[in-house]
Amino acid sequence: MIYPKKLENLIESFKKLPTIGEKSAERLALATLEMSTEDVDNFSKNLIYAKELVKCSICGNLSDNEICSICSDDSRDKNIICVIEDSKSVFTFEKVGNFKGTYHVLNGLISPKDDIGVDDINLSSLIRRIDDLEKPELILALKSSMEGETTILYIKKILSNKDVKISRLSYGIPMGAELEYLDVITLDKALEDRKIISE
Amino acid sequence: MIYPKKLENLIESFKKLPTIGEKSAERLALATLEMSTEDVDNFSKNLIYAKELVKCSICGNLSDNEICSICSDDSRDKNIICVIEDSKSVFTFEKVGNFKGTYHVLNGLISPKDDIGVDDINLSSLIRRIDDLEKPELILALKSSMEGETTILYIKKILSNKDVKISRLSYGIPMGAELEYLDVITLDKALEDRKIISE
Repeated sequence: MIYPKKLENLIESFKKLPTIGEKSAERLALATLEMSTEDVDNFSKNLIYAKELVKCSICGNLSDNEICSICSDDSRDKNIICVIEDSKSVFTFEKVGNFKGTYHVLNGLISPKDDIGVDDINLSSLIRRIDDLEKPELILALKSSMEGETTILYIKKILSNKDVKISRLSYGIPMGAELEYLDVITLDKALEDRKIISE
Repeated sequence: MIYPKKLENLIESFKKLPTIGEKSAERLALATLEMSTEDVDNFSKNLIYAKELVKCSICGNLSDNEICSICSDDSRDKNIICVIEDSKSVFTFEKVGNFKGTYHVLNGLISPKDDIGVDDINLSSLIRRIDDLEKPELILALKSSMEGETTILYIKKILSNKDVKISRLSYGIPMGAELEYLDVITLDKALEDRKIISE
């Protein structure tokens, strides 16, 4: 028994978090002991409260209430729906802050190898949302992996008989990137999707 | 408002930990949502319980009870006391597992520049412990910094009229280290403290 029991238990809890190994867990647990009682009380409560988060019944994003703050915001354009893999990507978009439409969080991507089918991700409610809109526009902001491409193809297919504008994020060179360090596929895509600036 | 309130609060709690910035805090908070309710409940409770840890009334080490498991262990040699800066160092020694004496945790080092004086660290109880022992031996396992050296000198001074054997950890080349990458002071110390192996 190296640690006092109460410290050992806290270290074990920290170790359940991804990327937190033995040494980091010990360091974080000891740091917790240095925190004020108020901060530790809040930390303890915030863990419990966070588990009460639900998925927005409209878009599937993490939410305090049944309908998330974005879906219940009248200033957001409900006709523009950005389809996204997970809530983390919503937060990334919101940090940029330029997008004024709404989101639809799939909470996964179609992946036959991981046994994730079309019914395992949040797709049926997307079709219902589109049917309720007058002039729907879909922006597919999914990653350029096998799973992302499969999901994009499937969404295109099931919406082919509906009047909906679909786009996806552009591929290309990240701003500020050095050409020489770019991977071949990205460079190839940037060439294919080149934008005419004068003719 | 980028995050739901309950997630925002948890992220803020994680950010109070050292080395956990905005991105890591978001990652850890989202990972918490993926943990089982039981694990999160335990995490929440373990935080509160960890704040109940006390300092052992004998050695000053972190402890579940008034007297720590090492001080209350009859198999440990009470005459040998390893003087150490903090509980973290105790755990490091205990992981190695070869030391069968006891510890005395100073919970700090003398540091005039940080306004830490001789009364701010756990020293007076060390003298009381030594007075109660028949054949006390002290091992000073403090770091080789200005503060460590100052503390070692002070302990030597206040114990100079007592019958106590005092040693300190040896300085030298870390096992497996390449000579060419060693700093000058370490190499100098290793030369000064060289050990005769044949004469």
